[in-house]
This record gives sequence, structure tokens and C-alpha cells, in this order.
Amino acid sequence: MALTGPRDFIRPLVQRLQPYIPGEQPKISGLVKLNTNENPYPPSPKVLAAIKQAADGRLRLYPNPTAQPLREKLAKFHDCKPENIIVGNGSDELLAMAVRAFVEPAIVTKSRMRTRTAGKSVVQFFHPSYSLYPVLAAMHGARANAVPLEPDFGLAPVRALKRGKQWDFRAALSFITTPNAPSGHGYSTADLQQLCELQTGVVVLDEAYVDFAEENGLSLSLKYPHVLVARTFSKAYSLCFQRVGYVVGPRELIAALDKIRDSYNVNGLGQIAAMATLDELPYYRKNFQKIVATRRRLSPMLAELGFEVFPSQANFILVRPPQYAAWAWLQKLREHKILVRWFDDTTLWDFLRISIGTPNEVDALVKAARAILR
Amino acid sequence: MALTGPRDFIRPLVQRLQPYIPGEQPKISGLVKLNTNENPYPPSPKVLAAIKQAADGRLRLYPNPTAQPLREKLAKFHDCKPENIIVGNGSDELLAMAVRAFVEPAIVTKSRMRTRTAGKSVVQFFHPSYSLYPVLAAMHGARANAVPLEPDFGLAPVRALKRGKQWDFRAALSFITTPNAPSGHGYSTADLQQLCELQTGVVVLDEAYVDFAEENGLSLSLKYPHVLVARTFSKAYSLCFQRVGYVVGPRELIAALDKIRDSYNVNGLGQIAAMATLDELPYYRKNFQKIVATRRRLSPMLAELGFEVFPSQANFILVRPPQYAAWAWLQKLREHKILVRWFDDTTLWDFLRISIGTPNEVDALVKAARAILR
Repeated sequence: MALTGPRDFIRPLVQRLQPYIPGEQPKISGLVKLNTNENPYPPSPKVLAAIKQAADGRLRLYPNPTAQPLREKLAKFHDCKPENIIVGNGSDELLAMAVRAFVEPAIVTKSRMRTRTAGKSVVQFFHPSYSLYPVLAAMHGARANAVPLEPDFGLAPVRALKRGKQWDFRAALSFITTPNAPSGHGYSTADLQQLCELQTGVVVLDEAYVDFAEENGLSLSLKYPHVLVARTFSKAYSLCFQRVGYVVGPRELIAALDKIRDSYNVNGLGQIAAMATLDELPYYRKNFQKIVATRRRLSPMLAELGFEVFPSQANFILVRPPQYAAWAWLQKLREHKILVRWFDDTTLWDFLRISIGTPNEVDALVKAARAILR
Repeated sequence: MALTGPRDFIRPLVQRLQPYIPGEQPKISGLVKLNTNENPYPPSPKVLAAIKQAADGRLRLYPNPTAQPLREKLAKFHDCKPENIIVGNGSDELLAMAVRAFVEPAIVTKSRMRTRTAGKSVVQFFHPSYSLYPVLAAMHGARANAVPLEPDFGLAPVRALKRGKQWDFRAALSFITTPNAPSGHGYSTADLQQLCELQTGVVVLDEAYVDFAEENGLSLSLKYPHVLVARTFSKAYSLCFQRVGYVVGPRELIAALDKIRDSYNVNGLGQIAAMATLDELPYYRKNFQKIVATRRRLSPMLAELGFEVFPSQANFILVRPPQYAAWAWLQKLREHKILVRWFDDTTLWDFLRISIGTPNEVDALVKAARAILR
């Protein structure tokens, strides 16, 4: 054969792809890391003990392929059946699987992208929200429909969405980050329900941060045939390292996701850690309260320094910093060994997202901000 | 909206899908488990110690998103660059990603499945081999081209493949399990090279069992622009539980896979375990030798009982059992608390695949076989 260039082996769709860029994970000691919404508190000592106890010769064996014992425990926790739950290698894996299970790739011709049936190829989400969604749509060859949130990051009333034409009530898949990231804006279950009732495709309520919020939409996933709720052990349960997320919803949709799941998608020590976590809920609930209290203390301190602080129901806050550009603040704070998140996105250009750390960490942030403004 | 049935939310392609069925993972004590090719020996004590030492408050943090320290160590091990390596949540994840990166879904019309460009939608593999490949093709809407191996599970000479018309030298992606599973048949690097040189698409040499074989094709992945080698820590390195696999190959293809990778696809303790494993190679090499020695001892013992035993270069053997049907042997052995693998596949109907256990485990198997034949 005449060997061709390496690009010829790669799908044009993949060649064109702009990958999702996760926040930095630097290993610099002494850095105050407030950039990727990790929990500042460690997992429960009992969770760590459970992992240590399981780290023996059994690691040679495959883990439970369907994470069945964990699904059973989660089913009890959420008062549903194991068939209503699928566990993933972090919730990211499950979000990607939802696109593959529920959305038809668009047919791309030289002149245009065309789809035979309205909405069948549409992955829809509000903007700004989790910047992974458009990447997942692009990977799959689906059409991304990004619909602006209100200026305060709230949901537009359904009537306005209907009038506005941009929101697609027939989208095959709609992702709703609730509470919103990166703003932290919380949404009421009543508003989410109203929106869900108008969608003819699947809705995923991405509740990665819901443990810090006032309401959650879990009941909707057990009520409607087209609503799924995505949760994760990463943030609220201090388990980013071990990659365990899950989706709750109607058994038919869960079964469809299960069909396209890698056989052993959840590592064994992650399964063990997640199960031990569910036995330690009071420990974690205390941490949620501490984080919410720290958020409530930090917000007015930053406001006093001239930051515009958006109300948050998550373990982070979105702020518009004073005096310097947001990207300049990113650099200045880094010089003070404080890492926050800035998004290279025109709508978010003026903002910083700050994860809620320990009281000492947020005090260090405020001190640095004061020094920068002096 | 008028809510429709749950099937309307699921892609027809997914509805039609027959999922891959992994081997049983029963938790029955005293069972001799020779059904899923796990290593009978535990990970090195130093690997277990490394995991235990890392199981602390750091679990709240995200793991290294690209598994960079592990890639660097693997690059040294294989004498290549980190850019030649991608790490996955088991090699299964990477095999699925290869389909998504290199194969165009076929355009399905009501009358037929059509592809604009020859081979672009073809996922090709020999049969029998890893039964996941056709599932991955089906999930992606690609055409699966299963080409029979020789009756002894060897590769047909390239000349015969050319004459036979069934093998597609223009397939977008060809998976070659080497050594073959479920037969254990080893392939020479020279034969693999000859085949690779004729392919115009990507070739993945799936070397899940290569540490038990006489040759490996790693050099091909560093020589050609279209050849990838998939490896795993699961089998040879006793780490099934923690899901770590990797692919070696040309940087352009690795970069394409990396673009469609979940951001944090490899759990942190898995990364740590894999790194510690690479510091303990002499321990594992001793285990490979023990397993090969046990395989060499078991094969003639079963042959003496009337089993047809195929030569194996893996940590399992394929046998055609005497007197009873293979599925009946499966049941009878299970009554003796011995679990082996039988495949519900017409070409494999008469065979059992037996993983090589400890000397005691294979003695128990032989004893049970004798009792069944008495």
C-alpha cells in the first residue's frame, strides 16, 4: 500500500475537535487550590479505612461489573430500585454515554449538516454551564444548541423560552446544570419540572453540586419517563480521585445507558469507597454545612472589596473582580499562591470562579485580594 | 407535550444492540475461578503498600488528568515518548475510543446500510477473538467484518487473505488479538508485520495476554503511522480491580484518542498502583514463569484425559472436552465448584476456555475432570 499521512487515519470530526480543557491540577506545595471545586475536607476516616482494608490480593480480580452492591445501596438512599441507577467512571462518563444513547449523529454533507427528524441530533444546554457539553456534542457529530441564561444566570420563564425560539423543545437531549456552574445559581424544582414537562426528548439534570443547594430534582427522575439526574461522589463526598458518579432515572433509559457501558467501568476501590461513604452521611453533611457557612462568610468579604458576587447554592462562587481584568486577577492571585478559575469564554471573560475552601484558605484569598487592591 | 413511550427516547441503534456479556464474577467462597483470565497471584506487596499509603485526604483531589507520571514511566519502559502513550480505564475503554476516533458510522437508510468511502465504516477482526469488538462496532453504527481464523486459530497467510476476498485491506480499523483469545494461539511479529503493511486503515494489536507469549508487536506501533498496541495491567499485572490499560503508538493517533478521552478517565489509586507495578517487574516476571509452567503441566494432564488442548501462549487454554458437550462440562465443573468459560457462539460451542490458576487450582480442575469422566 502507499502509506498516507497520519491525518488520513483520523475521522475529520475528531480532527476538527476542540477538546474540553479541565482546570489545572498543579502539584505545587503550599498552593491554595480553589480552581476545580474540590471539597476542602478529606473523606471520612472510615472511608479511608475501608479502602486500605480492601487493598489486598483481591485486586487481581475484576470488580463487580455493574457495581451492583453500590447500586443497591444507592437505591435505598434514593428510595428507588437498583434498576433506576447506573454507576459511572465519574459522572462525566455517564454524560458522554447519554449523548451516545439518545442523540443521532447529524448527517454531514459537503454543503450543510442535515438531520432527517427535527431535534433528533440536538444536544441542548444553557450557556454558560458545564463547558463539557458542547465538546460531547461535537465528538458525537451532534448539533449543539447553546441557549443563553438570563443575565443573572437564572432560567428564563418557560413563556419567554417559547417566545424566544432559540430553546428547542424537541431536542433529543438537554443538559441542565442545577445548581448552575459556574455561577452557582440555584433553580427551583418547580421551574425545572415545568421545563421538563415541555421537552419531548431526554432531560439530564446535572446535579454535581446539588448537596450544597436548597432543592434537588431527584423526584423528577423517578416521576417522568424522560428525566435523568446525574450525581457524583467527587465534590460533596471528597472522592474526585476515585471517579465515581451515577445517574438516577426511569429503568428503560438506565437500561439503554447500561447497554453501551464498558463492562467494568467502575474501579473496585472506587466502588468500595462510595459504599463506605453512604454509611457516613452525617460526617459529610457536617462538611456541607461548613462549606455553606464559609461561602456565606466569604461572599460579603469580597463584596466589601468591590467584587460583584453572584448568589450561589454550590461549593463555589462566581465573582466579577474590581479594578483589573479577570485574567489579570488570575495571574495576580497565582503570584500569591492562590489558584482560582478563569474561563476563556467571551460571556465569562470578566468573571472568576472561586471554589470554597477551608476558612483558612478563603482568608488567604481575601488577604491576597486586599494586597492586590492596595 | 404528549409523552411517548420510553423507547422513543432511545436511538434505534441502541435498542437493537446485543450487549457484550462479561464472564461471571460470582462471590461464592471456595469457588475455583478459572473463567475470566485473572492472574492467580496477588499484586506485589509493594504495590499494595503504595495504594494504602496514598489512601488519605488527597482522595478529595482530582487525579492527574492525563496520567502523566504513569505515561512517563511507561515511555521509559517501552523506550518511547510519553506522547506515544495514552492510558485508559482498562484497555476496553481505549478499544472503544479507537472505534470512535478512526471509524465513520455507516449511513443507514431504510433499504440498506451505505458508506460513501470503501472501508471507512468497517471495524474488522478475526473470529473467534475478543467478543467485544463486534459490540463496539454495533454501538458506533459501524460495519463489523468478522473474518474466520484458520481451524487451528492461526492467521491465514496474507496470500490466502487476498484471495479469500473477505478480509478488507481498506478497513478503517482492524483489531488483532495477539496472542489470540480465546485460543491462546500466538502470532509471530513477522506475520503481523506483513499484515500491517497491507492495511490502509488503523490496526490495533490487542496484546492483553502478551506477557505470557514468545513475541510481541510493540516495535510495530513505534515503526508504522497506523499501528497501535493495546496493553493492560489487568491480567499479567494482577490489577483487574483497578482498571488500568494503555495504548502505544504514533503520536498523531495517540493525540486523536486523547481528544475524545474523558478528562479524568483513570482513577488515582489505579495510576499509583500501575506506577508501583513498573518498579516491581522482577516480581511479576516470576509470576509469568510460574503461570507458563503451570500451563505446560496442565495441558498434557488434560490431553491424557481425552481433552483436545490447543497450544497456548496466554494465561489460559482452549480445550475441546471429551464425552459430554462443552456446556454440560461447564455445569458439571461448576458442581465441583470450578468455574471455567464457555461461549454461546456456534464456532466455540464445543470448547471451554480455562484460565491458568495456581498449581493447586489446576490440580483441583484435573481431579474434578477425572471424577466427571469416571
